[in-house]
Amino acid sequence: MDTANIFRSAFFVSDRTGITAEMLGHSLLTQFDNLVLKETTLPFIDSLDKAQEAVANINATAAADGVRPIIISTLANTEIAAAVGKANALFLDCFQIFIVPLENELGSRASHEIGRTHNLNDIVNYYKRMESVNYTLSHDDGVTTRDLSEADVILVGVSRCGKTPTCLYLSMQFGVRAANYPFIPEDFSSHQLPKSLTKLRDKLYGLTIAPARLHRIRSERRPNSSYSSLKNCEQEVRDAEALMRRENIPVLDATAKSVEELATTIMQQAKLERRIY
Amino acid sequence: MDTANIFRSAFFVSDRTGITAEMLGHSLLTQFDNLVLKETTLPFIDSLDKAQEAVANINATAAADGVRPIIISTLANTEIAAAVGKANALFLDCFQIFIVPLENELGSRASHEIGRTHNLNDIVNYYKRMESVNYTLSHDDGVTTRDLSEADVILVGVSRCGKTPTCLYLSMQFGVRAANYPFIPEDFSSHQLPKSLTKLRDKLYGLTIAPARLHRIRSERRPNSSYSSLKNCEQEVRDAEALMRRENIPVLDATAKSVEELATTIMQQAKLERRIY
Repeated sequence: MDTANIFRSAFFVSDRTGITAEMLGHSLLTQFDNLVLKETTLPFIDSLDKAQEAVANINATAAADGVRPIIISTLANTEIAAAVGKANALFLDCFQIFIVPLENELGSRASHEIGRTHNLNDIVNYYKRMESVNYTLSHDDGVTTRDLSEADVILVGVSRCGKTPTCLYLSMQFGVRAANYPFIPEDFSSHQLPKSLTKLRDKLYGLTIAPARLHRIRSERRPNSSYSSLKNCEQEVRDAEALMRRENIPVLDATAKSVEELATTIMQQAKLERRIY
Repeated sequence: MDTANIFRSAFFVSDRTGITAEMLGHSLLTQFDNLVLKETTLPFIDSLDKAQEAVANINATAAADGVRPIIISTLANTEIAAAVGKANALFLDCFQIFIVPLENELGSRASHEIGRTHNLNDIVNYYKRMESVNYTLSHDDGVTTRDLSEADVILVGVSRCGKTPTCLYLSMQFGVRAANYPFIPEDFSSHQLPKSLTKLRDKLYGLTIAPARLHRIRSERRPNSSYSSLKNCEQEVRDAEALMRRENIPVLDATAKSVEELATTIMQQAKLERRIY
């Protein structure tokens, strides 16, 4: 029974952004090899009216598909969850299933309120996040080496190996001040680190990438250039890896990793402390 | 029993990045008003050895706290989940609890494999994401108005009201090409939209912010300047809101919203189509 493809619609339903529900649902559903998914996120389902609209939408999909959809949800309010649960679908709610064991464990009642009011902690986190994103943006791509000593981590590697999105993720998700500095062919011919980096060696973290992948990425930007040629990509990656090895810089291969995986791995291996939770 | 503060350690355990587990755990646990949390994420618990290390860590915390911690986890592998479940803790695993109903529903077995190999879809998503992040970065803060017509959305508003982090989130999470353009006092005195925006009115989306909050944010960057003064912030916000109203630009108040909420709301209200899932 495992060979034929199965088609299903999946709905990620939440009273807030739905991002948690869709991340969880996505990783659960990718466990099924033969599943062909149509995914829809329904955020801000925070009233019974909106719950009923969502149910109508889901039921219409069930009728059109000829098979009931799957709902993965995070709904804090018990009545709204019950209303959504009446849809013609497999209903899996992460909130309702865990809140009772948590109440029992803590000997305390959950508020069941939607989108808890933003407290002082959220505001402090907002500032820290904003500040780290600003730092990261102003230290992207070696734009400036000013205040580089204030970075928590400085990603190095050849152009287009994934430094910028990884830095942005580090600052957005973890509040880390992440700078990046691209190696250019001049750095390889001098056989040493750029001057501005030598005193900051402890903060350096290297990214590398398979030359064929780099070739493909660079070709999207500048097709048929020497910059994007496979030969040049091979040479640059080889030189960058040699330089990083010589300088004892830890290196992570970005080829088959998502930005989330790169950022989380760097947090762990470089023992960086997150500033926001 | 609801008045005194309760202290607990929480562990977010995952065989991959742990980001889903920590987002879910965080939103479940903020439902308890009197809970004082110490949160720790343990990512990449993808072997029995690492599971045992995690258990030792959690048990040591239980002993030190004098009360058992809470584990919120996403663990695809049944044996690893069972090993972590032996810790002296309340063990809530999102994967194991939902995978059986999903298997029954789909009439198919989950692979229970950790970190499913990156498939073609992931690679395509990676390119789309990279491309939209690059677009967003090169159209940040009105840096260039070239190719502005290729934007999916253009955020407008006064300087420091939250446009940049919101654009970055839109591009990272949804693959949307999000540009932003700051209103400056000259735009208000001319009583009209900057020329480069008039033809793109349908793509414009406004952010506004409480003047007191703006004053605080700007003061962190340039304390005691006329730019950051409360009086100037009040004036700029008033002028920007009047301009956006006059031009029929939809406006969202960023004051009490997280970047995730802003981005999700804009996706929904501007009916933007996400390019990645």
